[in-house]
Amino acid sequence: MSSTTIRPRLRIAIIGVGQVGGAAAYGLILRSVTCDLLLVDNNIALRDSQVHDLTDVAYTTKSSTRIQGGNYHEAGQCDIIVITAGSRHTIGQSGLDAASRNVSIVRNVVDALCPVRPDAILLVVSNPVDLLTTLALERSRLPPEQVIGAGTFLDSARLRALMAGRIGIASNSIDVYVIGVHGESEVAAWSTATVGGIPIDQTISPEAMTERAELEEQCRQQGRAIVQAKGSTPFGMGSVVASICASIALDKRNVKAVSHWQPEYECCFSLPVVLGRKGIVRNVEVPLNEEEKAKIEESVGTLKKQLELVRRGL
Amino acid sequence: MSSTTIRPRLRIAIIGVGQVGGAAAYGLILRSVTCDLLLVDNNIALRDSQVHDLTDVAYTTKSSTRIQGGNYHEAGQCDIIVITAGSRHTIGQSGLDAASRNVSIVRNVVDALCPVRPDAILLVVSNPVDLLTTLALERSRLPPEQVIGAGTFLDSARLRALMAGRIGIASNSIDVYVIGVHGESEVAAWSTATVGGIPIDQTISPEAMTERAELEEQCRQQGRAIVQAKGSTPFGMGSVVASICASIALDKRNVKAVSHWQPEYECCFSLPVVLGRKGIVRNVEVPLNEEEKAKIEESVGTLKKQLELVRRGL
Amino acid sequence: MSSTTIRPRLRIAIIGVGQVGGAAAYGLILRSVTCDLLLVDNNIALRDSQVHDLTDVAYTTKSSTRIQGGNYHEAGQCDIIVITAGSRHTIGQSGLDAASRNVSIVRNVVDALCPVRPDAILLVVSNPVDLLTTLALERSRLPPEQVIGAGTFLDSARLRALMAGRIGIASNSIDVYVIGVHGESEVAAWSTATVGGIPIDQTISPEAMTERAELEEQCRQQGRAIVQAKGSTPFGMGSVVASICASIALDKRNVKAVSHWQPEYECCFSLPVVLGRKGIVRNVEVPLNEEEKAKIEESVGTLKKQLELVRRGL
Amino acid sequence: MSSTTIRPRLRIAIIGVGQVGGAAAYGLILRSVTCDLLLVDNNIALRDSQVHDLTDVAYTTKSSTRIQGGNYHEAGQCDIIVITAGSRHTIGQSGLDAASRNVSIVRNVVDALCPVRPDAILLVVSNPVDLLTTLALERSRLPPEQVIGAGTFLDSARLRALMAGRIGIASNSIDVYVIGVHGESEVAAWSTATVGGIPIDQTISPEAMTERAELEEQCRQQGRAIVQAKGSTPFGMGSVVASICASIALDKRNVKAVSHWQPEYECCFSLPVVLGRKGIVRNVEVPLNEEEKAKIEESVGTLKKQLELVRRGL
Repeated sequence: MSSTTIRPRLRIAIIGVGQVGGAAAYGLILRSVTCDLLLVDNNIALRDSQVHDLTDVAYTTKSSTRIQGGNYHEAGQCDIIVITAGSRHTIGQSGLDAASRNVSIVRNVVDALCPVRPDAILLVVSNPVDLLTTLALERSRLPPEQVIGAGTFLDSARLRALMAGRIGIASNSIDVYVIGVHGESEVAAWSTATVGGIPIDQTISPEAMTERAELEEQCRQQGRAIVQAKGSTPFGMGSVVASICASIALDKRNVKAVSHWQPEYECCFSLPVVLGRKGIVRNVEVPLNEEEKAKIEESVGTLKKQLELVRRGL
Repeated sequence: MSSTTIRPRLRIAIIGVGQVGGAAAYGLILRSVTCDLLLVDNNIALRDSQVHDLTDVAYTTKSSTRIQGGNYHEAGQCDIIVITAGSRHTIGQSGLDAASRNVSIVRNVVDALCPVRPDAILLVVSNPVDLLTTLALERSRLPPEQVIGAGTFLDSARLRALMAGRIGIASNSIDVYVIGVHGESEVAAWSTATVGGIPIDQTISPEAMTERAELEEQCRQQGRAIVQAKGSTPFGMGSVVASICASIALDKRNVKAVSHWQPEYECCFSLPVVLGRKGIVRNVEVPLNEEEKAKIEESVGTLKKQLELVRRGL
Repeated sequence: MSSTTIRPRLRIAIIGVGQVGGAAAYGLILRSVTCDLLLVDNNIALRDSQVHDLTDVAYTTKSSTRIQGGNYHEAGQCDIIVITAGSRHTIGQSGLDAASRNVSIVRNVVDALCPVRPDAILLVVSNPVDLLTTLALERSRLPPEQVIGAGTFLDSARLRALMAGRIGIASNSIDVYVIGVHGESEVAAWSTATVGGIPIDQTISPEAMTERAELEEQCRQQGRAIVQAKGSTPFGMGSVVASICASIALDKRNVKAVSHWQPEYECCFSLPVVLGRKGIVRNVEVPLNEEEKAKIEESVGTLKKQLELVRRGL
Repeated sequence: MSSTTIRPRLRIAIIGVGQVGGAAAYGLILRSVTCDLLLVDNNIALRDSQVHDLTDVAYTTKSSTRIQGGNYHEAGQCDIIVITAGSRHTIGQSGLDAASRNVSIVRNVVDALCPVRPDAILLVVSNPVDLLTTLALERSRLPPEQVIGAGTFLDSARLRALMAGRIGIASNSIDVYVIGVHGESEVAAWSTATVGGIPIDQTISPEAMTERAELEEQCRQQGRAIVQAKGSTPFGMGSVVASICASIALDKRNVKAVSHWQPEYECCFSLPVVLGRKGIVRNVEVPLNEEEKAKIEESVGTLKKQLELVRRGL
């Protein structure tokens, strides 16, 4: 048995336990993804009340997850570290102000975590997610495959589900990705959409799919509607965090679109990858058409300008 | 097949989709308890954003629950109707003020639901839960076995889990109930506590159990800490709602302490019952000792005085 | 609520409760696919002992499935009827003898079931599965979308899992189908293989996939090895039955390769379809290359000759 | 993190992969109890075909269990070692002959396993289970808390389920144990039966429970019927093995009746214990009445005589 893989009790830390962080924790507990869950927040009273409230969840379900409060240093020693701090949009605040605020938050959080455990996986949920994931990667000095942003994971799931509803096929038999920079300029990669692995143009009658633009718009509209009314999308994003953490914790090696380092562009945005215990265990090349490529290039251009501003002190 | 039990797609309505209602919905979706989930709230924008946010949960998990917004009348036709309206404590507000406010809320909600479907189950989560469950029963004119309050369900789960941790035995092999009127005067029925069905005094060394008062206090303290910091216990209470709904929806017939009508006292408070598709399908007589009985009598006395005040117009 | 879909308690019948039927029942119980499970067998003592043995499974797990013995007429009134009779290969017996024996068995079973409930789904597990599925369709007079053969479901799952192991990606992120006539002439449709929906040639380095023939052979070898030692593949086939029944019972609408009626060929063999509550709810067109098409044509030719022999009295 | 509990990938070995061993493996795979499953059998062809057949189960479900064939020495290094060898009753063979045969089998198996890993848990399924568990304990030189026999686990589950059906309460809210020496002289400990932890005499109207003898007889009858028709109770016993292994592997610490060493009687028979990662982690004292005690004494007397015969060379 000497060659047996040894693994410690898995520990996940959540930094920022407001609405998104709380919902992420709730999802992780209900799905029993981790043995230990560490909650960290500058607001200690909030953190402790979340520990108690979420412990009640473990008590009333069969979950064996143990929930504890902790500090940044302890979080830096966990297997997966989820940064949700600043994930609440402030209604009325301009996108730039929010971005600027979150840049500081994420920088401070990553600095406080350091020295991060060298094999830790960092998952960034706060927005603008691609910008912040890029900064978190630089700041943490972790290998690129260990720093992930939620990116367009939720957008891809939404598009898939809306299509599933329209054509009457299970969403997990459909593959279509929303990719690129998360937000208004993200791209639905229709040219690679498949049903049961079969290109969608060859299986589904074209008329059923004429309304692609409409589906994309419905997707984006859904996100906007939630943020306008609640200031954040806690439950949906909480589920996304639980899903990504499950893929990592259980070494699932399934294909998902998440934000990660793109060497040829020198920034992070979303493309499909294989997620496993070591983070991004493999890239999946997506054969985009020219129109899709052009859209990606454009949105990446904008992201890189923002990055430069941020690096120069905003 | 003519004699086969026919059942419709199960529908659950949640009235009030703030923090507690939202967490209850999240739990119901992740556990796939129901086919259809109807969200109702006076704040239509909040309701619709919750519908979208929770739909994202269904999209990112394998849940097949369909979430929709609805009105009180539609809710009145569902199989299970959960009333969480007013479940948020307002910090600083006196208990009496909050009670008075929630009395109006629950009365208005039940009136707006009517005519309630005659076989619907009503689940009251708002506090003071025993008072409000009693009023909801009177107002809805449903049979007593169909009106349930969350009562001491969570307190019982907490006490069991704390004991489990102390003696190193699974909490689902432990039976101990917190009963009576939910709140400061609730009673831990130690005299009936068992481990694997064996009276605890005969299996566990007495010294391990000397700190019963301490465990009880820890239980109560936990609830207070959450409410003080967050104003409500959304995740824990959301899990409780999901558990009670699962027992009803799946006709589980397990034994749980919930608030329900006590004919000899003419009010609702918590004692263990068997929960199933028709609500309370059986009472479980608890052989209390004299001290426990006296404590129950006392707290019921207080509840009945409050009820009288409320009935006379507060 | 008058427009609500009404559904009865789901009932599944298994005809033939030897090793394959028993394992199928075990899988259905552990996965709680059905409310009622009806076991039918000419050997009444065997049937009853399986009812008792499988009831113990329900007792020791949390399954709520109720298991009962029944006759062919009762089976004909179930929602899904699984025919496993004759699924045990007799070692040493020639394929032709076994085929001839099973043709009689399946004919007799289908006749004994009639009149079959008009919306029942018939699932044929016995071999040669494509021949028997074709006969069961003719004999039962059910609509073609309600008669399904296990076909190459297991072969497809095996090929996918072997590939998954080789390239380090979750098998449920891989789509590749074994199609055509189940057995030595079945075809691995490599030209349509995808990873996360992306054509495999564009994502995986070619050298990793040079050994396609080797993988196919490993697949076939695995089936032969089991049959040689045990005379049947009960556990694997039991899992397949449980999976197909789950897709139907829960209206999953996922894409799976199963044997079903091909109008242009006038016989049944395996191609991917969408499985749901009504059986085959949609075909999925597979864009095969010329080589794959030729192989299919050839094996279908053989099947049609056998069918003619059988129809002429063998 | 230096103080973190380190745990290896869990490995379970099954010795004897006929009907009971196969069904046990099937249950372990479907419930994903273990990472690695090692199958051992003197019949290598059977062993290998079971490896292939059960691997197909992992392929067609989401189980991540890896199944391999192995030898006795490798099995001795696993975390849990299940001995099902000889668990098939030979119809017509006298109990004594079967016992004598299985005594040799279990002795040989345990000797072949040695040196057993010092923290391994040994689970004996073969009959006569109490006799063989006692011998396996002596022979393996493992600490008594690490040697367990299936004992009356299944009988207890059956009695509980039959009662549940009669009184309309979930079987997991009922505690009643069949204890003592497994077989005709086992004892239903009615005096300690509870519903939701409440003594059954105080909760259920006496008339409902008058037929206790009848329930006990129905229980025993069920076991006999299966063995008479099939020679063994593979599916039920397979579920029992999966349940006990799950309690150990996941350190569940739930209370179950299993056969284990009774120091005051110097032999193994069934009484309730707490099962966890280290085997029997705690005894649960059962306050029997005089009649129950007398019955236990009597059956233990018989067991001890058999043990003496066996030790003297039979």
